[in-house]
Amino acid sequence: MKILIAGGDGYCGWASALYLSARDHDVTIIDNFIRRKWDNEHDLNSLVPIFTLDERVKEWNRLTGKTIHIINIDVTNYSALCEIINCETKFDALVHFAQQRSAPFSMINCDHAIRTHINNTVGNMNILWALHEYSPNTHLVKLGTMGEYGTPNIDIEEGFITIEHNGRSDRLPYPKQPGSFYHLTKVSDSDQIIFACRTWNLRATDLNQGIVYGYNTDEIDLSPVLANRFDYDHIFGTVLNRFCIQVALGYPLTVHGEGGQTRSFIDIRDTVKCIEIACQTPAKPGEYRVFNQFTEMFSVLELAKLVKQVSENIMNIPCEISHLKNPRTEKEVHYYNCINTNLRSLGLQPTLLSNETIVSLIQLAKKYTNQVNLKLIPPQIQWKSENEQISAAKQNHE
Amino acid sequence: MKILIAGGDGYCGWASALYLSARDHDVTIIDNFIRRKWDNEHDLNSLVPIFTLDERVKEWNRLTGKTIHIINIDVTNYSALCEIINCETKFDALVHFAQQRSAPFSMINCDHAIRTHINNTVGNMNILWALHEYSPNTHLVKLGTMGEYGTPNIDIEEGFITIEHNGRSDRLPYPKQPGSFYHLTKVSDSDQIIFACRTWNLRATDLNQGIVYGYNTDEIDLSPVLANRFDYDHIFGTVLNRFCIQVALGYPLTVHGEGGQTRSFIDIRDTVKCIEIACQTPAKPGEYRVFNQFTEMFSVLELAKLVKQVSENIMNIPCEISHLKNPRTEKEVHYYNCINTNLRSLGLQPTLLSNETIVSLIQLAKKYTNQVNLKLIPPQIQWKSENEQISAAKQNHE
Ligand SMILES: NC(=O)c1ccc[n+]([C@@H]2O[C@H](COP(=O)([O-])OP(=O)(O)OC[C@H]3O[C@@H](n4cnc5c(N)ncnc54)[C@H](O)[C@@H]3O)[C@@H](O)[C@H]2O)c1
Ligand SMILES: NC(=O)c1ccc[n+]([C@@H]2O[C@H](COP(=O)([O-])OP(=O)(O)OC[C@H]3O[C@@H](n4cnc5c(N)ncnc54)[C@H](O)[C@@H]3O)[C@@H](O)[C@H]2O)c1
Repeated sequence: MKILIAGGDGYCGWASALYLSARDHDVTIIDNFIRRKWDNEHDLNSLVPIFTLDERVKEWNRLTGKTIHIINIDVTNYSALCEIINCETKFDALVHFAQQRSAPFSMINCDHAIRTHINNTVGNMNILWALHEYSPNTHLVKLGTMGEYGTPNIDIEEGFITIEHNGRSDRLPYPKQPGSFYHLTKVSDSDQIIFACRTWNLRATDLNQGIVYGYNTDEIDLSPVLANRFDYDHIFGTVLNRFCIQVALGYPLTVHGEGGQTRSFIDIRDTVKCIEIACQTPAKPGEYRVFNQFTEMFSVLELAKLVKQVSENIMNIPCEISHLKNPRTEKEVHYYNCINTNLRSLGLQPTLLSNETIVSLIQLAKKYTNQVNLKLIPPQIQWKSENEQISAAKQNHE
Repeated sequence: MKILIAGGDGYCGWASALYLSARDHDVTIIDNFIRRKWDNEHDLNSLVPIFTLDERVKEWNRLTGKTIHIINIDVTNYSALCEIINCETKFDALVHFAQQRSAPFSMINCDHAIRTHINNTVGNMNILWALHEYSPNTHLVKLGTMGEYGTPNIDIEEGFITIEHNGRSDRLPYPKQPGSFYHLTKVSDSDQIIFACRTWNLRATDLNQGIVYGYNTDEIDLSPVLANRFDYDHIFGTVLNRFCIQVALGYPLTVHGEGGQTRSFIDIRDTVKCIEIACQTPAKPGEYRVFNQFTEMFSVLELAKLVKQVSENIMNIPCEISHLKNPRTEKEVHYYNCINTNLRSLGLQPTLLSNETIVSLIQLAKKYTNQVNLKLIPPQIQWKSENEQISAAKQNHE
């Protein structure tokens, strides 16, 4: 298939581009490298040093003979985007990873919230309009997040729920309760895609992805020049990856509050498989469908205990769990049960979290501890201002 | 009360500002007059000629001795907004009307969709961040629309619905199905306000307003210099106001498709009352509440028949109903039942649609027919492109 990958220089996008190219799909990456700029702006770096996208695709070509096309564009630039979408042989699928994806980044201040909002929602709107105007048959595969749903007290379905009310019934979009300005952009994107499919007969799959962990994939492992980014910092680092790095540093695991926050997770080796599955069985014209793209659910404290056990019992590394004041506003104890049958019924064989994976991540981190800036480990971005924290604490005390 | 009215140069905002000032509230208007610029850009004009905001508030002061403060700022300009919010004596309420409010405008092309999106959602985010940073106690009264809900097959509640699912239950945000990029901005605003109330303890009332009709209010009627805008064009004109103008012009009533589309309506005399009610009984800190701000439901065809009957039987003006090809993508026959108890339980006495109101609107229109540009009457903005219309027609035919 001819596949356009927006955001193909990033963590999920790069691994997916290689996976698809290895399977003989004709892959084009668009990216404006803004993530690398955000890293510079905030003095962040990937734990594993990454090469330029140019160097990466050259290395891939040298090793496999396969070509990945790359184009430097910003998806918020409509005319540039249209030129690409409106090419001779249309793309079969457009996989859209190209967004600002950190919740803490979006909560730093109004400016960061708005930059996140504009980057994500305007990019998404441009893609919808460009498909509408120039290539309505291209299947949009959009990355959303399980975080869109929040933590309702009922089971989380895949995108829609049938509601019985006053003797009548309808199948309606699942109510969302996003917990940051980043998550709000994803909810807004979903609403826009639903509208575009209904109005313009576009075809779209919304992948509500869980938190991704892991590093190695068969393709990434071929050469250090193909290295993927591996975020360890408090802004872009995600929980399991961060715990493994913290073990390697001898740093206590940073659990936010009680740690009862339960979330959905997926191994990056499954992410890339899911992307191919979604592309190969496209949504029908006019169809908007949602796949909850995760394989397991864990609470943050469960994960911390698992990592501690692997660290101490298998690797002989002492490991502390430290409960920090929660920087976010979220429930620390709650019901959580999410459905994820769609991808499995299309053939996904889940790679469940294993001790081996945790060991391999800790080993990877050990190799690169010299890359770590320790200041980037503790959480620093607060959802509430200091005044709000004081008055919330007072309220809790009363 | 000290009340800030964002968008106070517009149709609802101006009538509300006068109503509140007449009742001795201390009113400040902010507006950047962008609506007047959009009118110029698209060669539109209010049926009733309007004066500058400067002239309007001077006339109000001359007639009543009361002062309305006015400040020319764009709510998408964060620092300018903060300066106003962060004044010595904080505002008790901020009533937010300052948005692009036309669905057809937002569907013209990608550029109009994005201008609508940025104007509305960035303005709303700025307001939330400014309140969070400088005045969390100011009660936000935000104008949403009944159109956010779409036309689900179950009763439409006020913002939230209790869902029973697999033996569990939760009260969740009511699922929305917005029908244009304009409506999508309102849904996104609501999600952001819910988040801000939960996270920052802000206090907010989201007024999901029905389609507003009417012109006269006690204050507007005091002087022609106080004239309100009255939109008749296919972009900003709303259905009942447009029907009355069409009668005055001897133009057939423009019903889209079958006309079974049912919507919620409110008289502008009730809009202004609802605004005062919302301000005077503010939401509590941390509370996000929704009032469905309408008084009656009508289908488009019912309204057309009502106007035709008043026109022919009371005013002796012949009147045709013409069913045009529907420019929008929407159900033309559907279930529709909305709850609106919140405002009535706070004391709203509805002004129901009467023959007198229709007569007065037709008379007003008759007075200003010389202002009308006939080209602006028929709908011209299509939700679907021509290709999409052809293939949709084919599908319907099969
Ligand atoms: N990593 C996770 O745990 C996770 C979980 C759920 C969902 N997701 C979603 O998957 C997608 C990819 O996440 P990731 O972890 O790979 O993020 P990433 O930051 O590593 O990669 C995102 C890429 O998109 C590019 N990009 C951003 N805005 C762009 C724009 N306007 N124009 C062109 N390129 C742009 C960046 O330069 C970067 O290369 C995101 O949409 C994210 O929300 C990620
Ligand atoms: N008129 C209706 O039928 C109706 C129905 C439901 C909801 N509403 C909502 O009520 C509100 C007011 O509607 P209206 O009919 O009075 O619209 P309007 O166009 O007459 O007035 C809007 C005013 O806001 C100002 N404005 C827009 N963007 C601004 C910005 N960025 N900064 C400063 N000022 C800005 C405009 O200049 C204009 O004066 C809107 O939010 C609309 O969505 C209206």
